[in-house]
Amino acid sequence: MSERLNVVVVGAGYWGPNLARNFRASPDWNLAAICDLDIERAQRVADGVGGVPVTASLDEVLADPAVDAIAIATPARTHHPIVLKALDAGKHVIVEKPLADTREKGVEMVERARERGLVLMTDHTFCYTPAVLKIRELIAEGSLGDILFVDSVRINLGLIQPDVDVFWDLAPHDLSILDFVLPGGLDVDTVAAQGADPLKTGKSCVGYLTMPLKNGAMAHVHVNWLSPTKIRQMVIGGTKRTLVWDDLNPQQRLSVYDRGVDLASQSAETADTRASNISYRLGDTWSPALPEREALAGVATEFAAAIREGRPARTSGESGLRVLSVLEAAAASQTIHGAPAPVAGFSKEEISA
Amino acid sequence: MSERLNVVVVGAGYWGPNLARNFRASPDWNLAAICDLDIERAQRVADGVGGVPVTASLDEVLADPAVDAIAIATPARTHHPIVLKALDAGKHVIVEKPLADTREKGVEMVERARERGLVLMTDHTFCYTPAVLKIRELIAEGSLGDILFVDSVRINLGLIQPDVDVFWDLAPHDLSILDFVLPGGLDVDTVAAQGADPLKTGKSCVGYLTMPLKNGAMAHVHVNWLSPTKIRQMVIGGTKRTLVWDDLNPQQRLSVYDRGVDLASQSAETADTRASNISYRLGDTWSPALPEREALAGVATEFAAAIREGRPARTSGESGLRVLSVLEAAAASQTIHGAPAPVAGFSKEEISA
Amino acid sequence: MSERLNVVVVGAGYWGPNLARNFRASPDWNLAAICDLDIERAQRVADGVGGVPVTASLDEVLADPAVDAIAIATPARTHHPIVLKALDAGKHVIVEKPLADTREKGVEMVERARERGLVLMTDHTFCYTPAVLKIRELIAEGSLGDILFVDSVRINLGLIQPDVDVFWDLAPHDLSILDFVLPGGLDVDTVAAQGADPLKTGKSCVGYLTMPLKNGAMAHVHVNWLSPTKIRQMVIGGTKRTLVWDDLNPQQRLSVYDRGVDLASQSAETADTRASNISYRLGDTWSPALPEREALAGVATEFAAAIREGRPARTSGESGLRVLSVLEAAAASQTIHGAPAPVAGFSKEEISA
Amino acid sequence: MSERLNVVVVGAGYWGPNLARNFRASPDWNLAAICDLDIERAQRVADGVGGVPVTASLDEVLADPAVDAIAIATPARTHHPIVLKALDAGKHVIVEKPLADTREKGVEMVERARERGLVLMTDHTFCYTPAVLKIRELIAEGSLGDILFVDSVRINLGLIQPDVDVFWDLAPHDLSILDFVLPGGLDVDTVAAQGADPLKTGKSCVGYLTMPLKNGAMAHVHVNWLSPTKIRQMVIGGTKRTLVWDDLNPQQRLSVYDRGVDLASQSAETADTRASNISYRLGDTWSPALPEREALAGVATEFAAAIREGRPARTSGESGLRVLSVLEAAAASQTIHGAPAPVAGFSKEEISA
Repeated sequence: MSERLNVVVVGAGYWGPNLARNFRASPDWNLAAICDLDIERAQRVADGVGGVPVTASLDEVLADPAVDAIAIATPARTHHPIVLKALDAGKHVIVEKPLADTREKGVEMVERARERGLVLMTDHTFCYTPAVLKIRELIAEGSLGDILFVDSVRINLGLIQPDVDVFWDLAPHDLSILDFVLPGGLDVDTVAAQGADPLKTGKSCVGYLTMPLKNGAMAHVHVNWLSPTKIRQMVIGGTKRTLVWDDLNPQQRLSVYDRGVDLASQSAETADTRASNISYRLGDTWSPALPEREALAGVATEFAAAIREGRPARTSGESGLRVLSVLEAAAASQTIHGAPAPVAGFSKEEISA
Repeated sequence: MSERLNVVVVGAGYWGPNLARNFRASPDWNLAAICDLDIERAQRVADGVGGVPVTASLDEVLADPAVDAIAIATPARTHHPIVLKALDAGKHVIVEKPLADTREKGVEMVERARERGLVLMTDHTFCYTPAVLKIRELIAEGSLGDILFVDSVRINLGLIQPDVDVFWDLAPHDLSILDFVLPGGLDVDTVAAQGADPLKTGKSCVGYLTMPLKNGAMAHVHVNWLSPTKIRQMVIGGTKRTLVWDDLNPQQRLSVYDRGVDLASQSAETADTRASNISYRLGDTWSPALPEREALAGVATEFAAAIREGRPARTSGESGLRVLSVLEAAAASQTIHGAPAPVAGFSKEEISA
Repeated sequence: MSERLNVVVVGAGYWGPNLARNFRASPDWNLAAICDLDIERAQRVADGVGGVPVTASLDEVLADPAVDAIAIATPARTHHPIVLKALDAGKHVIVEKPLADTREKGVEMVERARERGLVLMTDHTFCYTPAVLKIRELIAEGSLGDILFVDSVRINLGLIQPDVDVFWDLAPHDLSILDFVLPGGLDVDTVAAQGADPLKTGKSCVGYLTMPLKNGAMAHVHVNWLSPTKIRQMVIGGTKRTLVWDDLNPQQRLSVYDRGVDLASQSAETADTRASNISYRLGDTWSPALPEREALAGVATEFAAAIREGRPARTSGESGLRVLSVLEAAAASQTIHGAPAPVAGFSKEEISA
Repeated sequence: MSERLNVVVVGAGYWGPNLARNFRASPDWNLAAICDLDIERAQRVADGVGGVPVTASLDEVLADPAVDAIAIATPARTHHPIVLKALDAGKHVIVEKPLADTREKGVEMVERARERGLVLMTDHTFCYTPAVLKIRELIAEGSLGDILFVDSVRINLGLIQPDVDVFWDLAPHDLSILDFVLPGGLDVDTVAAQGADPLKTGKSCVGYLTMPLKNGAMAHVHVNWLSPTKIRQMVIGGTKRTLVWDDLNPQQRLSVYDRGVDLASQSAETADTRASNISYRLGDTWSPALPEREALAGVATEFAAAIREGRPARTSGESGLRVLSVLEAAAASQTIHGAPAPVAGFSKEEISA
C-alpha cells in the first residue's frame, strides 16, 4: 500500500465536519489540519475527529510542501479564488458543489487545473451512494440497452432559500447524477426551463427542465419546494430494461423492470409497417441488493485514486462545469419563457472558446 | 319527477355498450334505440342491456320527433358531420371525447349548438368519478386556497397508437380534469410541449406539457407510454392546503395536506424582507371518504339536468373545445422545439373570431 | 385433441354464472345445461353465456348418460346429498368450497368418490391464480429451500356473516392455499385458534390460527372483519429465500427475497457454537412476471385433465377435507381457550378410522 | 423554575451515551457524573457530552448527598442489585428495560421503591415518541371509543441473540406500548404464546402472543427475526374509529380511520336480531401531524416531573413489572404448547402475595 496523502479541510461550517470525518477514517488519507478563519469553529471540528491541528491561515497551509491536497467546503462564491490559489500552489483540490457561482469562473478553474496537471474534483457526493454507483454500472454494462428517457422528480416542502432558486438548490443533484451515469455524460445541446413563483417570493419555487439527449432520447427534471410530500424518484428507460430509483424506499431503492416496447427493426420500413412491428415485453422485476456504505468515504477513495493514477476524478471539475453550464442555460431559458436555450460546450476547445 | 327523456346511442363499438348500459339504468332516460351501420353489432349491444330496438339508419333516428337526444360513440373523425346533423335535427347531443379531430371543426360544432339553443356535451367521463367531483368541490369551497401549481403524471407501458401520439392519447384526461376543477377552467394563454420519440415510431411516446396559469401559477402534465410502472397522480398545490390524488391507491385516493409555505403579506416589502416573512405549516393530513359510484351514471344524470334546466353541461362542448385548443397548440409548440405556443381563446367572441 | 366432456352446472346463484362462463369458454368442455330449481334463474345464466339448455330436474341431469360431470354451486349444506347422488350416478364432480358443512359429511363424500373411482374436486379457485401457481412452482423446485414459517394476513372491513364466523368465512382461502403450495400439503397435527367477538355479535370477528408444521416450522393465519384497511399478504420463509405475496399490489404481487439467516450445519455442535455459526444474507430481490389469466379457466382445465388422466385433481376432495378438518379443530380449540386441538388425519386409514 | 436535579448515569455501554446526552440537554437536570467500572469508557461518554466528571465507584456516587437520582444502563441481570442499593441510599431510579431478568426480582425492586417512597421508573423509551404519545391521547380522549382489538407486528431480519429469544428481544416494545396506551394498562389475565425455532438455534425466532383483554377484546403480537422485510405496524380497533400506526412510513405514521362496524344496541335482543342491526361506516381518514421530538428528552422530563410531583412515572416500575409478568407467562405458555398461561397480577396485594 502506498503512503497516505496529506489533506487539509478548508471550511469548518456545515459540510466540513463530514469531509473531516471521512478523510480521517480513510486508509488513503492523513487529515493534516482543519483550516477556518474562525479558529474556534475549526477547533470544534478537529475535536470531533479526535485531535487534528487547526489553523486560520490558508497561506500557511498552501505553503506547506507536505500537504498534497485540499478539500474546500466554503461558500460557493469563494471557491474560485481559493481553488486557483491552491492549484497555483501545486495542490490537488476537491471542492464542494457547485464548482463555482458562475460558469465563467468554473471554466477558469478547470483550465488552470489542466495547465498545472493537477486533479480538480467536484464533490458530487450523491454519485458515490451505493444506488447511483449501481445505476452507473448497470448502464455501463448494457443492462438497460440504449437510453430512451430519464425522468427525475425531486420534490418536497423545502426551505425557500434566500439566494438561490429551486433550480440551483435542487437540480444540481439530478444533473450531476445524469452526468455520472449516462454513457456520454451530461451531453446536452439545449435546455428548456419553466419556473413558477406563485408565492411571489422573488424566485422560482417550482421548476421543470427538459433536455433532449442524443438519438431522440429526453431527460426531464422536476424540482419543487412546495410539495407537501417528499419524492426522490428517477426513472431511466432503456431499450432493454427500465430502472426505477426510489430513494425513499430503503427496502427497495432500485427496481429493474424487464418490461418495455420492442420494435422489430427492418431495413426498409415505413411508419405504417413500424406500428405492426411493435411488441411488448412483460418480464420479471429485479431489485439488486445494495451495500450499506457512506458516500463520502467513496469520495475520499476516488480523490486519492485520481491523484495516484494521474487521471481525472470520476466527478471531475469538468463534470461540475457541465452542471453549471446547464444551470446557466436554464436561467437563460427562463428569460425567454421556457424556450430551449443553448448549453455551452465542454470540450477543451469549447471551454477555451 | 319529470318524464324520461329519449336517447339513442349511435355507435356500438368500444364505448357504446357502456353508454347504453348507463342510459338504460338511469331514471332520467329511456334508451330508445341503438344505432350502428353494422346492425349485428348494434343487436349485440341491445341484447346486453335487455332488448332495445336497433337501427342502421341515423336519418331515421334523427327524423323521429320522440327522440330528445343522441349519444355519439363513433370514431373522432366522424363526430363533426354526425353532431352537426343531429343539432340541425333539433337533438341534444353528447359526444365521445375528443370533441372532434381538429379545433376548427370543434368550433363549428359549438357555434351550431349555441345557435340552435341545444345542449352539446362532451363525455369527459373522468370528471364524474367520485375523486374528481370531490376535488372540484374542495377547490370551489376554498379548501385549497389559491392554486399555486398543478403537477399531473399519467404514465404506463402503453399501447403505441397507430394514429395519435401520447399527447392526444393520454393528455385529454388531464386537460379535461383541469378544465373541470380549476376555478376559471382551462384558461391558459400558452402551452409548451416537449415530446420524444426515442424508438423512432413516428410519433411522440414521452411528452411534457407546461402551461402558465393565472397569477404566476403553473400546470404541468407528464404523459408517457414507455414507463414500466403505472402512475396516475395529480398534485394540486394551494396557498392553504395541497391535494394529492393517487388514483391507483383505492384505499386512499385523495389526501389533503395542511402543509405548506406561508408568506406574510405586507404592503411595502422588498424581496429581502419577504424571505424573513416565510413560515412553514406542518399540519394534519386528511383523506375524505369517497362514495363508490360509476362515473358514467353521473354523465347521464348531468346530460339530462343540462337539457331540463336549459344550461350548458358541466363538461360542455366549450370544455371539449378548450381541450382541443391546448392539444393543437401543443402540436405547434413541438414544431418549434418546445417553445411556448399560443392557445386559441374560447370566449364567444374569440371563437367567432 | 380428445373430445369435449359434457358438464352441467348445478346452482345458478352467485358463483354458478362464473362456472358456466368458464366451462363455456373452455376447449375441454361442452356446457350441456344449467340446472336450478328456480328455472328462471337458470335461464338468466344460460342467456348470459349464449343459449344453453336449462332444467329444474337434477334427476334428469344425472340420468343422462351423455353427462360426464357436474359442477355444484349450491349452498354448503346441500353439497353432501347432491354430491353423493351424482357420484352414485357415475358422474365426476366439482364442488364449491367448502366441501361440506361438517367434516363427517366430507369424509363420506371423499370415500364414496374413491369407491366409485370418480374424480371429486374442490373448487379452491384461488389456487389457480397465477400468483399461487407460481408460489407452488417456486416451492416445488426448491427455490425457497425448506419452509421455516408461513404468516398469512387476510383482513378487511368485512360483512359480518349471519351463519359463519370469521374463521369459516376467510380462513378456507389461506388453508386451501397452504394445502396447495406446501410440499406435503396441509399436514398439521394440531391447531390453536384464538377468536374474539368484541362487538358481541355472537361469533368471532377477529381470529388467529397457529399450526406447527413439520421440522419445527410454523404457520399462522390472521383473519379479521374489523380492519379498516384491507390486507392480503402471505409471507413464506424458507432456508434459501423468503417469498412475500401481496395480492393487493398488482404491480408487484410476488417478491422473492434472497435474504435470510444461514446456519452453518455441523455434526457435533451445541447450542452455544450454533450462535457463532449464524450468518446473514442480504441478496437481491426478484419479482417474477405473472401472466394475466382467469383462475376459473385453470379450474376447468384441471378438472378435465384429472378425469382424462384418471388421477386426483390438484385440489381434490381430500384437499377440501383437510381444510374442513382444520376448521373443525379450530372450533374445538376455541372452546378450550385457544389451547391446541388435534386435527383429524387424512390418510385412507385415518379417514376410515 | 425549580432547581435542577442531579443525576448520575451508571453504565457507559450502548445506551448510556444516549441517556447522558439527553440528561445533559434537559433543563430539568444536571448531569453530575458518568459511572462505569471501565473508567475509560466512562470518560469517552463524558467527553461526548462536553466534560462531565467520571467515576468507577458506584458506592461513591450513592454516598453523595447531592445526587438525587441515578439512571441505570447496565446489563439486565445487574439491575436488581444496583437498583436496590440505590433505593436504599435514598436515590430515585430510572432503569433500562427490562426492569429485571426475572419477575421475582422485579417485584422486590418495585416493593422496595414503594417502601422508600422513591420514584422507580422504567425507561420504556418508545412510549415517549410523538406517535405513541398521540395514540395514548387519542384513546384517552375517547376518539377510538372502546377498544375492540390490537394487532401488533414487529418483524425484520433480526440478529439472533445469544441469550434471549425473539419474545424477550422484541415483544417488550409492544407490551410496554400497550401498557402505556390502553386505558387500564396491560391488564391481562392470560397469555398464549406460540414460538417456532425452525433453524434449530435453541430459541424461538418466530413468535405470536395472544392476550384476551377486558370485554371480549383481544391483543395479538407478532414478533419475528426471520422476515426479509421490516414491518412495524400496530392496528388498534375501536368502536368509534380504528387507528393504524405504521412506524416506517414517516410521511404518514398515524392514520385514524372513521370506518367500522356499528351495532345498534338494544335491551332485549337475540343473536339473530343483532345481525340485522349491523351497519357499516366508511368515513374519512385522518392523519394527525406529529412533532419532531426525541423520545429520550421526554423520558428525562417525565422522570423529573414524577420526582417533583411525588407521583409514579408514566412508565413506572409497576409498568416494567407488568411487561415482565407477561413475558414470564409467555414462556410458561410455550412449555404447554401455546395453551394460555396465567399472568401474575400487579396490584399491591397481588404483588405482595
